[in-house]
Amino acid sequence: MSRLVEQVPPGKAVKGALVVGQRAGGEEISIIYHILRGLNPGPTVWFNGAIHGDELNGPIALLQLSQKLQPEQISGTIILTPVSNPLAFAARQKNTPHDLLDLDQQFPGDPEGTLSQRIAYQLFHVFGTAADYIVDSHTVGHDYFGQPYTVTKKIRQDLQPAFEQAQKLAEIFGGAFHCSLDFSENLNEVPGNVYGFLDVQAQLQGKVAFMVELGAGGIHQPDAVRFALEGYQRLLVDLKLLSSKKNPPASKLPAISIKKRYYLYANTAGFLTFSVQAGDFVKKGTLLAEVTDLYGQKTAYRAMHDAFVLINRNNAVVETGDRLFFLGESWNDANGGKK
Amino acid sequence: MSRLVEQVPPGKAVKGALVVGQRAGGEEISIIYHILRGLNPGPTVWFNGAIHGDELNGPIALLQLSQKLQPEQISGTIILTPVSNPLAFAARQKNTPHDLLDLDQQFPGDPEGTLSQRIAYQLFHVFGTAADYIVDSHTVGHDYFGQPYTVTKKIRQDLQPAFEQAQKLAEIFGGAFHCSLDFSENLNEVPGNVYGFLDVQAQLQGKVAFMVELGAGGIHQPDAVRFALEGYQRLLVDLKLLSSKKNPPASKLPAISIKKRYYLYANTAGFLTFSVQAGDFVKKGTLLAEVTDLYGQKTAYRAMHDAFVLINRNNAVVETGDRLFFLGESWNDANGGKK
Repeated sequence: MSRLVEQVPPGKAVKGALVVGQRAGGEEISIIYHILRGLNPGPTVWFNGAIHGDELNGPIALLQLSQKLQPEQISGTIILTPVSNPLAFAARQKNTPHDLLDLDQQFPGDPEGTLSQRIAYQLFHVFGTAADYIVDSHTVGHDYFGQPYTVTKKIRQDLQPAFEQAQKLAEIFGGAFHCSLDFSENLNEVPGNVYGFLDVQAQLQGKVAFMVELGAGGIHQPDAVRFALEGYQRLLVDLKLLSSKKNPPASKLPAISIKKRYYLYANTAGFLTFSVQAGDFVKKGTLLAEVTDLYGQKTAYRAMHDAFVLINRNNAVVETGDRLFFLGESWNDANGGKK
Repeated sequence: MSRLVEQVPPGKAVKGALVVGQRAGGEEISIIYHILRGLNPGPTVWFNGAIHGDELNGPIALLQLSQKLQPEQISGTIILTPVSNPLAFAARQKNTPHDLLDLDQQFPGDPEGTLSQRIAYQLFHVFGTAADYIVDSHTVGHDYFGQPYTVTKKIRQDLQPAFEQAQKLAEIFGGAFHCSLDFSENLNEVPGNVYGFLDVQAQLQGKVAFMVELGAGGIHQPDAVRFALEGYQRLLVDLKLLSSKKNPPASKLPAISIKKRYYLYANTAGFLTFSVQAGDFVKKGTLLAEVTDLYGQKTAYRAMHDAFVLINRNNAVVETGDRLFFLGESWNDANGGKK
């Protein structure tokens, strides 16, 4: 296995391309990395971006972070992979176009498998193995809109200390809310192989790992990029890789911790218009949205419970089974309130 | 040929589905229409939408228009086809997925050709033939952002009276600017078969036809929808299909008439960040945008002439040959200024 990270000498910043495959047209498929090894010892942090090819605010913020970092000011090692799924990124889509797989469901990967499995293997064994802390930057899908938030996943009771450290770091990162999910009881919250998530597999290897969701997919949102850049820097200061003189302003801590979430799906088809949006609290029975078909017939969608709107659909065209909203059903608020 | 429009009795509104083909899964491919025939005689206006499947503000506004119209208040006939390319619409993309063709380059169509050619044929011969006035509602592409504007195309000197009428109607419709293009001299302004555009072929049949561009593609923009709805109503009042008591507030007329436009293309690849946006006037040499590659290297893009920014790219990922901006190079402004 490549020891790319370990080979960087103290006080050096190395940028390069880790080749993970070839294309029929002659191009190499590679993951571009920035490794900054401080003069002084300390932990290793890996900031990963664009594991889903259409999630852009994180990669843009990571490139800005790289420009701000000087190895001589770092205690420890910082690894940046702004775009970890280069072909999905080039295709402006979530999944790898070659095998149609979600790279974030392929960990720890397979060096002899499909392209997504091979990319997962390289990411996990070259960067993941070297890291103590892993922050995986996402956004919501390119058909959706939401404010930045963080997600931690509880896997097993014996991994509780690392999980609690991830929760503390997620709080420091900040966001409009925080999702704390208990995967020790339920692996079916979202469709797909939840067990193959980078942050799940990393925790099973003893790492501290969590996800940040940095706004809307498919576009560059300057506010979300600024938020991410400050959040990354706060984590580095908290972990003592950077001096506290570098500390950006404190984040508004997540006021709301979401414990249970669900999707509201369309049963009808047509054009979607909203009555509420991400960030709203809604009462049971509130009109959330209407779908108007091409004859002008409308269907109303109402809240089935009191809920907090985590994400709303940003694509106006819906068909049966499309997700309209991601709703928080159970939460703790900052004032000790619960639902 | 179907005489759908002519068969609607005076004082009736008919909604239906014009079948244009079949799918392998058993579904019919059809274009949903609304035909409103007034009690009193008058001209026939056809409002077409989503000839490109990802251009949504027009269709949403046309469905709202349909709800506001009563046949007994109409003098003449109003045809609405909110979504004229149903399979591109279902695919959330510009071109027809079956044959990869741009439906707006296939007119007057071919009843024995590919699906796009067949749809063009039906649209042109069922709705186009019946219409005196054709307004084709577009938006800019789903990777782009722009304010609403109108486009008229001069084809031949002997068609000048209808062209001038289209220009007058485009002014009444309103917008941030107006593009008046002379296709009698140059058919190569944009790639593709310009001669197959709906508004070009309609003019060759003696119709008054023009395009309205209703904001950004791929999303629902409530402001652009409201603007379009008022514009459609103003046209109907001006053409005396509706009483002037129904007249919505006058539009801010287009202050700028664009005579020559060009695209600025990317020569490098990476993440795009803007310094200017649609609606800005820029001087020669102004920094328009930067593209940052995955190593952090930046390329600056500057204005080669004084220009007016018609459209800017909204997708942050660019590769060689992607369009960054659509720029107006030559214009008349409202105060008699020129460039």
